Amino acid sequence: MYQLSETAKQIKRSVMRDLMALAVSPDILSLAGGLPANDCLPADELKACFERILQRDGYRALQYGPQYLPLREWLAAHMGRRGVSCKPENIFITNGAQHSLAILSRLFADPGDSAVIESVTFTGVQQVTLGRRLEVRTVPTNLVSGVDVEALEQAFGKQPKPKFAILIPNFHNPLGVSIALEKREKIIALASEYDIPIIEDDPYSLLRFEGKAIPYLRALDDGQHVLYIGSFSKMLAPAMRLGWIVAPDELGNRITVLRESLDLESSQITQRAAAEFLTSGYLDGHLAKLNNTNLQRKNVLMASLQQHFAPLGAKWTTPEGGLFCWVTLPDHYDTWELFEAAVAQKVAYIPGGAFAVEGGYNNTMRFNFSNATEANIREAVSRLAQVIQEQKPA
Amino acid sequence: MYQLSETAKQIKRSVMRDLMALAVSPDILSLAGGLPANDCLPADELKACFERILQRDGYRALQYGPQYLPLREWLAAHMGRRGVSCKPENIFITNGAQHSLAILSRLFADPGDSAVIESVTFTGVQQVTLGRRLEVRTVPTNLVSGVDVEALEQAFGKQPKPKFAILIPNFHNPLGVSIALEKREKIIALASEYDIPIIEDDPYSLLRFEGKAIPYLRALDDGQHVLYIGSFSKMLAPAMRLGWIVAPDELGNRITVLRESLDLESSQITQRAAAEFLTSGYLDGHLAKLNNTNLQRKNVLMASLQQHFAPLGAKWTTPEGGLFCWVTLPDHYDTWELFEAAVAQKVAYIPGGAFAVEGGYNNTMRFNFSNATEANIREAVSRLAQVIQEQKPA
Repeated sequence: MYQLSETAKQIKRSVMRDLMALAVSPDILSLAGGLPANDCLPADELKACFERILQRDGYRALQYGPQYLPLREWLAAHMGRRGVSCKPENIFITNGAQHSLAILSRLFADPGDSAVIESVTFTGVQQVTLGRRLEVRTVPTNLVSGVDVEALEQAFGKQPKPKFAILIPNFHNPLGVSIALEKREKIIALASEYDIPIIEDDPYSLLRFEGKAIPYLRALDDGQHVLYIGSFSKMLAPAMRLGWIVAPDELGNRITVLRESLDLESSQITQRAAAEFLTSGYLDGHLAKLNNTNLQRKNVLMASLQQHFAPLGAKWTTPEGGLFCWVTLPDHYDTWELFEAAVAQKVAYIPGGAFAVEGGYNNTMRFNFSNATEANIREAVSRLAQVIQEQKPA
Repeated sequence: MYQLSETAKQIKRSVMRDLMALAVSPDILSLAGGLPANDCLPADELKACFERILQRDGYRALQYGPQYLPLREWLAAHMGRRGVSCKPENIFITNGAQHSLAILSRLFADPGDSAVIESVTFTGVQQVTLGRRLEVRTVPTNLVSGVDVEALEQAFGKQPKPKFAILIPNFHNPLGVSIALEKREKIIALASEYDIPIIEDDPYSLLRFEGKAIPYLRALDDGQHVLYIGSFSKMLAPAMRLGWIVAPDELGNRITVLRESLDLESSQITQRAAAEFLTSGYLDGHLAKLNNTNLQRKNVLMASLQQHFAPLGAKWTTPEGGLFCWVTLPDHYDTWELFEAAVAQKVAYIPGGAFAVEGGYNNTMRFNFSNATEANIREAVSRLAQVIQEQKPA
């Protein structure tokens, strides 16, 4: 029998993935996933882009090769438009945000080192910290203004000094909240004062459907304390498996070698197809359609929650973009227990506890509103309220 | 300034990659790379496959999704034809052999644990062992029959017990040699006796252009001691970024979660295009063309070495497939020193020392014969002999 490493024994399978697997049956109304809308994926444009680059670039699209310069150039200009001054050489192409997190975690920390993450956060963030046997300090997140900055300062000040912090500033997964501007400014000041790198995990910022954009942490920084992570998974298509890191000159070589050791390089095919999509000017139209759809669905979710969940005493976040809304039921409910009854009624969500690093949050749930029709969102919320009503303790 | 992890400080950039970067200038005759022939990449067939799957599968090709079952089914049948009995569920899709090595290294060993690798081996093997701060034991490799089995037994017998061994049994990179059948049988017996997993790194076996196929280590094993790694990079195209692990049932869940923590999943686009290529029956014709080209080029290399290098007292391996030939000059030559003079004469190779885990092998060089024309191979070998002749110590 095979003997596993300590790491392999301890890293946790994402409960979320198991729950989503339960909820893929076609007769289930699922708010459990984290997928962009199937019907909003730019299938025609991407098909044209793949055809064009395979025709035009011939063997170069199929070989090994350096990170594709036109893609790095587009991304450097894109970051510039969002207030981040950087050169194409500062753009490091990866296979998505999880890949970027895995690389940067290894860049800064060895097993046994400390890191700071939010108490409730994306399971992938937990996998690159707890799952690498880092000692994790958690900080709570306010459901209106984002991460608790006082708690962050306390976590930064404790010894041993944390090697990095990971934050999800825009349309947080699973909370749906964004960090307020004044808090962002304080976070940058703390990062500088305590000399701790902030990893800004940002798969969602281009998915804003209302309200005003808030500057990236990286845009408020001098480039010495924030490593920005972007992703094409939600803004273009998950199967591109592409993302990027904005890294300072001094870290480029180390990031390159760490990434090479993990999986050599990203695909020339998908890098070139993504660059073709972007330089053909398809992105703005795609995002307009995607975000309009998300907005309609979010509005339906909000109205349905008001109708069916407000009477139960529930509260929820009001996302201005992204894919997720976080619902908090009164304390005495247990959303793990409710899950089975919900699936029996052909409706699914993720219990919020699945995202809680140190347990708890058993009266919460994450709703995805991007990949369900308006009619299905209405029906799902109505059925869930019924299930909750029936399970109400005496 | 950023503080790096111990791992990030210690992992070595592949010198090979730096040397190849020096040698990409179009006027250089390069035997330095490790690329399949540009002109043998199946560009037309792959273009047709991408078009077909993007047309047929619509959003499913662009979304997140489970490992693509038709690809796993094809690979399970393929492994079956090569004597490996396994089910599609035992096929785990990765982004290539380096990715598979990175996953399996983490599955079995933590920093500080021991592992066994060959004294001269692919730099990516060094990155997933030394580069993760494993304690590495090396074993020499015979240039005709492959790894030294007595040395392997000694390395297995020492305490602390090694967590795994990595071998490249077919058309070794950089040595070009394959492990003889009787040695393979002994290796399996040793793995069983000492209960040490063997990672069989096999990117090249389908690139056999002469001689008789030798059974995989995994085909000689009961599935309890060998983890097989295959890759599409050389047999199809590097930019597919696809490979696979054949793993026993008991390890499937742990491999899944380790991989998820690194980069979630492989692209549905490339998985589906690869499956389309394979199930359309394009592989055999492609391999016939590729291997015929490689054979012609290897024959030209052998004849050129006989003409120009034999008089210098050099010896070389005679590969029956793959991409590489290993040349050993008399002891007093230094191929690091020769490299600069060679590049000045517009010809490049990789000094063998770049693959030597503990240094040495300074009189050796790796030649790639797959991605240079016959005329360029002749001219490169002739020029190199001239450079060597001129640098001969008095």
